[in-house]
Amino acid sequence: MVVNDAGDGSNVVVGGDGDLDCSKLVWFKFYKEGGERNLSWSQIAATEAETVAAISCSGHGRAFLDGLVLDGTEGPVCECNTCYGGPDCSHFFPDCFADADGGDPLFLEPFWMQHAASSALLVAGWHRMSYSYSDQSSMSEELERHIRKLHAIVGNAATDGRYIVFGAGSTQLLNAAVRALSPENSSSPARVVASIPFYPVYELQTDIFRSVDFNFQGDTSLWKNNSDTGTEIIEFVTTPNNPDGQLNKGVLHGPNVKAIHDHAYYWPHFTAIPAPAHGDLMIFTLSKFTGHAGSRFGWAIIKDEVIYQRMLTFLQLNTMGVSRDTQLRTLKLLKVVLAGGGRDLFEFGHETMRKRWEKLNKVISMSKRFSLQKIAPKYCIYFQKIRGVSPAYGWLKCEKEEDKNCFAVLQTAANITGRQGSVFYAEDRYVRLSLIRRQDDFDLLLQKLNELITGEEGPKTM
Amino acid sequence: MVVNDAGDGSNVVVGGDGDLDCSKLVWFKFYKEGGERNLSWSQIAATEAETVAAISCSGHGRAFLDGLVLDGTEGPVCECNTCYGGPDCSHFFPDCFADADGGDPLFLEPFWMQHAASSALLVAGWHRMSYSYSDQSSMSEELERHIRKLHAIVGNAATDGRYIVFGAGSTQLLNAAVRALSPENSSSPARVVASIPFYPVYELQTDIFRSVDFNFQGDTSLWKNNSDTGTEIIEFVTTPNNPDGQLNKGVLHGPNVKAIHDHAYYWPHFTAIPAPAHGDLMIFTLSKFTGHAGSRFGWAIIKDEVIYQRMLTFLQLNTMGVSRDTQLRTLKLLKVVLAGGGRDLFEFGHETMRKRWEKLNKVISMSKRFSLQKIAPKYCIYFQKIRGVSPAYGWLKCEKEEDKNCFAVLQTAANITGRQGSVFYAEDRYVRLSLIRRQDDFDLLLQKLNELITGEEGPKTM
Repeated sequence: MVVNDAGDGSNVVVGGDGDLDCSKLVWFKFYKEGGERNLSWSQIAATEAETVAAISCSGHGRAFLDGLVLDGTEGPVCECNTCYGGPDCSHFFPDCFADADGGDPLFLEPFWMQHAASSALLVAGWHRMSYSYSDQSSMSEELERHIRKLHAIVGNAATDGRYIVFGAGSTQLLNAAVRALSPENSSSPARVVASIPFYPVYELQTDIFRSVDFNFQGDTSLWKNNSDTGTEIIEFVTTPNNPDGQLNKGVLHGPNVKAIHDHAYYWPHFTAIPAPAHGDLMIFTLSKFTGHAGSRFGWAIIKDEVIYQRMLTFLQLNTMGVSRDTQLRTLKLLKVVLAGGGRDLFEFGHETMRKRWEKLNKVISMSKRFSLQKIAPKYCIYFQKIRGVSPAYGWLKCEKEEDKNCFAVLQTAANITGRQGSVFYAEDRYVRLSLIRRQDDFDLLLQKLNELITGEEGPKTM
Repeated sequence: MVVNDAGDGSNVVVGGDGDLDCSKLVWFKFYKEGGERNLSWSQIAATEAETVAAISCSGHGRAFLDGLVLDGTEGPVCECNTCYGGPDCSHFFPDCFADADGGDPLFLEPFWMQHAASSALLVAGWHRMSYSYSDQSSMSEELERHIRKLHAIVGNAATDGRYIVFGAGSTQLLNAAVRALSPENSSSPARVVASIPFYPVYELQTDIFRSVDFNFQGDTSLWKNNSDTGTEIIEFVTTPNNPDGQLNKGVLHGPNVKAIHDHAYYWPHFTAIPAPAHGDLMIFTLSKFTGHAGSRFGWAIIKDEVIYQRMLTFLQLNTMGVSRDTQLRTLKLLKVVLAGGGRDLFEFGHETMRKRWEKLNKVISMSKRFSLQKIAPKYCIYFQKIRGVSPAYGWLKCEKEEDKNCFAVLQTAANITGRQGSVFYAEDRYVRLSLIRRQDDFDLLLQKLNELITGEEGPKTM
């Protein structure tokens, strides 16, 4: 069978790909008119991939094509979810810590398993070996076109008349932007700032490069009333913010202030989209949008040509652009997302996150000891209605005077690993709980919180 | 048909994959014992890839899965080789310049087309979405194991008791190495040097980072008799050298000298392997080994744990490691290479390069006006004999007093674009001619050189 939609042949993958795009239909037409033919050189690869996918790992783990192959075994090993083990991940470790730490966006994994047929990608051995595409650049024109289309459909960023560059995740672009916005050959390096609580990589990365052109200078508020306009200030503005999900706006203003708008989470999964973002320098990433953090793909949308050129030069000398394999895969994933105008992905993403937030809120609302951040529901131009709140993280506060280290409270009292508030330069009275991990992680987090809060001395007065 | 070897079903791909490795046989066995089944969700991807591969582009171009799709056309456009055009690349432009400029290693493209079945890769939509592998690292253990096996088989580097890190091509690793070898918090930044002629990225990259910890300081020879051992010196040692193919050794010695051994070309394609390289910090890349420059994958082999950790930290904060898609593809390619102990690839690579060098030498030897670098044939421990010389580049010299700009001579007299000697910090009396590009490029280069040299005033006295 030449063309065969998903959902009927695999032990693991269940899905209905009703969303094949037009280009696919053209291919099918081409095939049907030309008569069916047996596929040839692609079949070993297809067999391998389907064989690995058919390893079920008890629903609590995953086998991958590049997983370890142990001596004496036939295929790659099962890689078990947190708190599961054994050769087929069927063993649950009850004393295990619930992991609410990292920002791995694996809540989207089931979406891609449901869209197995349309999102699978076959890479030929000779695919894009060159340093450059046919226009001599290191960026796929076709991918750029799809990114512009994506923003037009979602309505989360203005791209008209703006430039786009690709990076190895937003990580590489954050620093490329700092460099491009820093003055050249100035005696005073640019001050790089962000508003507490903020994503720690802003500081760690700025520090490790030890550039003569810029320095990290801490919290934005320190520079609010500063009248020294001789020194450039670069402000990281994170919308929605990591860790607390707020739709931050730039704090500093003036001719010497430049902003880097980090929109990693500005997708309908995590927030209402009140209007298209239109900052002069905006950064997006695949990681929190499709969930493919491992692919290391991000893009920046840039208004000013000089800044665009400076970023491009740096990205070229840093890594000679982004892996063409990653660009190919990103294109494939975007095609799946765009096929239904984004509905499939964003409804899946938003529903999953909204339900998790509701459940978390319900548990925490029973407690006197803990509280969560408040986020106001807003009208979303993508869904064209006011949608339920659905942040990526719970920004949990320990309300008791003596609970100064909320991370430790959760660790010792409930076997929960969050991320300390101080990691985000906030008080340790706060702890970030990741809501975007695998369902197993979330379920365990909720269960442990439930146990902890049910054990409190009576419910909170409502 | 579930399993179907290559070579019979495509218009483009001709090949006999006689080199399937054992793990593949295990899969086949598994399938046969379990009974054949129709493949399901992988088939759209397989059909797309085979359909694109079947677009022949007249043998002077290539269509890619992520190629531009023009309005009104059904599939991606043909991307034509230099000097070819038209919708199917059948049109040859006779006045076109022969391109011997860039280092695109496309001489290896036919190898991968011949190994279509074993090198094809099917990536599932949910493959490796996480930031980390199951050991919490950002590097595939299975890939590292294959890299160590590769060096053991080829004999070109010692890996026992050494650490390995991955980077986005050698490009990212070069700077990661400079950083890791630079002193921390020293008042005098490390001096970064290289021996002329050298790969220009060493300087361009060191400059663009504008670090307080290191500066590029030009040619190694300036520091040969320097007795200032208070300042760290980092020497790039390129073996074989780009552009001239010589097996360079480190020039500077002393307690304050550290070397970065760039072994991008230290493969049997380009040089005899006299002995395993065993520098303290060695850098390799996929680009010139399998020819997949677009994949952006390289690795460093490091003796000292502290240096390894420093590189790892930097790579993490720069890009959060290398794309997992790229790591998966690299693993697949390495499996193909390793299947026959490397024979297939290295014999193909060496034969292609040796023949090109012979042809180039034959033409140049008829000229009084030009000469090529001399490289002595050496015993190769991989091939276990003395092998013909086969460098990646011709380092051409204009011998006439008045031909001070050899690049311009080739441009105006022969419509050949090489790369100026001054790009490598050498005299412009030299020009680098790339021998590793597509066959079309090499054929045209040879033809234009032939015409130029045949037109000289009589042959050189032998």
